[in-house]
Amino acid sequence: MKINEKRLLENIENVGSIGREADNGITRLAYSKEYKEASNILKELMEASGLEVHIDGVGNIFGRRKGLQDDLPSIMVGSHLDTVKGGGLYDGNLGVNAALEIINVLNESNYITKHPIEVVAFNAEEGNEMGGTFGSRVMSGLQDPNASWLDEKLLKYGMVKQDVKNSVRDMKTIKAFLELHIEQGGSLYAKGLPIGVVNGIVGITRYNIVVTGETNHAGTTPMGLRIDALTGAAKLIGIIDSVSRSMGDPFVSTVGVLEVFPCFVNVIPGRVEMSLDMRDLDQSRIECAIKQIELLSKGIENVGINLKFDISKPPVKTDKNIVGIIEKVCQNKGLEYQVMPSGAGHDAKATAEFIPTGMIFVPSIYGKSHCKEEDTEPIDLVRGTEVLLDTLMEIDKNL
Amino acid sequence: MKINEKRLLENIENVGSIGREADNGITRLAYSKEYKEASNILKELMEASGLEVHIDGVGNIFGRRKGLQDDLPSIMVGSHLDTVKGGGLYDGNLGVNAALEIINVLNESNYITKHPIEVVAFNAEEGNEMGGTFGSRVMSGLQDPNASWLDEKLLKYGMVKQDVKNSVRDMKTIKAFLELHIEQGGSLYAKGLPIGVVNGIVGITRYNIVVTGETNHAGTTPMGLRIDALTGAAKLIGIIDSVSRSMGDPFVSTVGVLEVFPCFVNVIPGRVEMSLDMRDLDQSRIECAIKQIELLSKGIENVGINLKFDISKPPVKTDKNIVGIIEKVCQNKGLEYQVMPSGAGHDAKATAEFIPTGMIFVPSIYGKSHCKEEDTEPIDLVRGTEVLLDTLMEIDKNL
Repeated sequence: MKINEKRLLENIENVGSIGREADNGITRLAYSKEYKEASNILKELMEASGLEVHIDGVGNIFGRRKGLQDDLPSIMVGSHLDTVKGGGLYDGNLGVNAALEIINVLNESNYITKHPIEVVAFNAEEGNEMGGTFGSRVMSGLQDPNASWLDEKLLKYGMVKQDVKNSVRDMKTIKAFLELHIEQGGSLYAKGLPIGVVNGIVGITRYNIVVTGETNHAGTTPMGLRIDALTGAAKLIGIIDSVSRSMGDPFVSTVGVLEVFPCFVNVIPGRVEMSLDMRDLDQSRIECAIKQIELLSKGIENVGINLKFDISKPPVKTDKNIVGIIEKVCQNKGLEYQVMPSGAGHDAKATAEFIPTGMIFVPSIYGKSHCKEEDTEPIDLVRGTEVLLDTLMEIDKNL
Repeated sequence: MKINEKRLLENIENVGSIGREADNGITRLAYSKEYKEASNILKELMEASGLEVHIDGVGNIFGRRKGLQDDLPSIMVGSHLDTVKGGGLYDGNLGVNAALEIINVLNESNYITKHPIEVVAFNAEEGNEMGGTFGSRVMSGLQDPNASWLDEKLLKYGMVKQDVKNSVRDMKTIKAFLELHIEQGGSLYAKGLPIGVVNGIVGITRYNIVVTGETNHAGTTPMGLRIDALTGAAKLIGIIDSVSRSMGDPFVSTVGVLEVFPCFVNVIPGRVEMSLDMRDLDQSRIECAIKQIELLSKGIENVGINLKFDISKPPVKTDKNIVGIIEKVCQNKGLEYQVMPSGAGHDAKATAEFIPTGMIFVPSIYGKSHCKEEDTEPIDLVRGTEVLLDTLMEIDKNL
């Protein structure tokens, strides 16, 4: 069975170019008309490939191919169809069309798997008002349909609570979930590796930090008498960077937001507010890092430093057996790979809490994603799809 | 001759409370109705003290007292009457009312000075659309009336170019300018000194700094592959702080404005823009500091750092003879003092370019100014006014 590179690339372009703007960025936000248009095109392609298509109440698209033992739980394979504002061609869209390509290859070979296969295109994976990975969280039953804030948001997109309830799947009807995705970081690309075998999706813990100094006149306050919130914040950023590097991969931390008050050229900053985003595959390592940061921050003189806990999404491990299967597939094909965590959230994170889940990464050129420069070499798209196919076959036969 | 503390404090309150708001902050912006109201009250007080009052085309208020040799150039004494938004009672207003108090004391003693005396209340000293110290710069001829940008701004305040031209004084008609002002910083207050003898007004040099990194995903980019503009900026702020402290007083520097792009919790900052304000009494020391900062910034890895020159206002020295006179007055009165530069701009900076100029500081409690907490002990207000009076008498007799 052989992946058809031309067909794969054409489908990626046909479905994924919907929402392309003058500057080449692609904006196909959840519940937008671009999302609906792309979802109609995908539905037609799925039907042309013989899939039985169903779109659930929150816009997730499912295409089912019967199995030899059709009452067995299905193997689900896919990703998401929505994009960020001004995103690229491959984030999400690759995984959906790679799944469709697998169906086409199976069809050409007249091969019927033991388990039914479901191709899925989730909705609203990217950051949105209902929170990221909304579609897959709904399917997995992770989204409380009675959450007080939900009704109003749903209404904006023409949905009601019942749509959420109707979209929850009995997860026992799914044997496993497989997702092929671009890496988004530059780790595979930098090392020249074609495949990443994802062993988990990092947890995210966020703090809001306030550094308090004393607003004062930039000219009349001697260096020795000033309590400069920004100088204090700069020291704290240095501590955060040092601690984070000392943790070793896959730990990462980012101060992405920083605001200075009052923010005048001739006034010593009295207050700095900043965000801290920490990620690791092991929650206890995140907690260890924040303890070190807190401890070391006490050495910063004069300023007040307040680290306020914001949110924590725990890490999730992918299925060990599937990780082993993907590794073996790579070895059999002679493809170099690394086992690596995902630093970003994915639909696979929602499913991994309930069913065996596997995830395969392909390189992003220069590590670019969520931007119009997002790109992956065609040969890597094909290799990723091949590994996805062989992994699915192995799960179908032996898991 | 004795300062009348009650009268001094009452006049400070009567004139200076105009513009006081519910939160106790005082907003008496240049050319506002509050400024006009305060200027009318001051005019009445001046006239009641026998001064011949004249308001020039840009709102500077002059009150003249005849001298024994009335054709001699006058000794000018005063400060400004406008405030910042939400400022305090003493910034500017103290110097104006201290000058008026001197007139009242001379009147009570039936003492006629050899030189005529002019009490002045300058307009638009605080930051405004025409630039700070506008009133005194116009009087001194430092404001080009034909500047292309000026007409439009003047029109907003009901003035025309001719008003500026008419307000330029022949500086030969002024023998000296004396200004009593609160220190605004906390230097005198911290040392418990009642008097600061100002030996100059620092020069201000400003740079705009851009730190360039690479915008990237906060989760998927390993610590070793990221080029974080904010981490780079934090190191640069540390360098700026160290260099500035190593320069020693009166050198100060401030990064007051800092903006992060794109400023999202989950995106590594790709660009940081910040301001750098450096002040010293010696321009060559400012240039030495920026050279050190530039040199050391080359040690910051990965990020690009661009320091772009913005503006430079050179330092101005006050008159050495007047500095000596003020010191002697303090010694005679048994008042401790320090010779110190002014870190902020003042009307005295404009006059110092043309005529012997002297400036006296009194302590600001906790160094607070440009805010509603601005305060000075009554005894310090009186001491400052006494030193101002004795200095004026000494200049009148012996300079």
